[in-house]
Amino acid sequence: MSDDAKIKLLQLRKSIDNMDAALIHVIAERFRITKAVGALKADNNFPPSDPTREKEQITRLRTMAADAELDPEFAEKLLNFIIKEVIRHHKQAKGEA
Amino acid sequence: MSDDAKIKLLQLRKSIDNMDAALIHVIAERFRITKAVGALKADNNFPPSDPTREKEQITRLRTMAADAELDPEFAEKLLNFIIKEVIRHHKQAKGEA
Repeated sequence: MSDDAKIKLLQLRKSIDNMDAALIHVIAERFRITKAVGALKADNNFPPSDPTREKEQITRLRTMAADAELDPEFAEKLLNFIIKEVIRHHKQAKGEA
Repeated sequence: MSDDAKIKLLQLRKSIDNMDAALIHVIAERFRITKAVGALKADNNFPPSDPTREKEQITRLRTMAADAELDPEFAEKLLNFIIKEVIRHHKQAKGEA
């Protein structure tokens, strides 16, 4: 690998690190909100998961992903990955886990 | 569920939708950058994955996650999930997939 390519790689990696910092903080905030949802659901004896809402979220996300030239399949898999963790939190809040 | 609780839930869901929009766009941008990395690596015949770099990323992310009160285990699993997709892209760029 040439020096030019090495420098270019280091620069790109700095941008990736910035995106990762953004990602972590957005997800941390998302979990703060879903924890509030979990507490609200637990207090009101509402089921932890809501398939209708999840379906709407996935449809919306796939559209946004396609617009941003992100693979909608990957976006959906990622959201499912996050939702699975959220449901685990909700069950914990309800004392089921 | 009381009307108050329903209104509160709708408000929280709007915030989640905003976080998801941020998430999708940050990840879309991250993939734009990693695609540039993939092309650079392919042009310079560099291996698609870099275990040392990945280890550093994970350590950094876990620290950031803990600071933001996000479960470091979950942050690591999420990064691994994203990196797996990135490596798949890199292999595609190299014509291996």
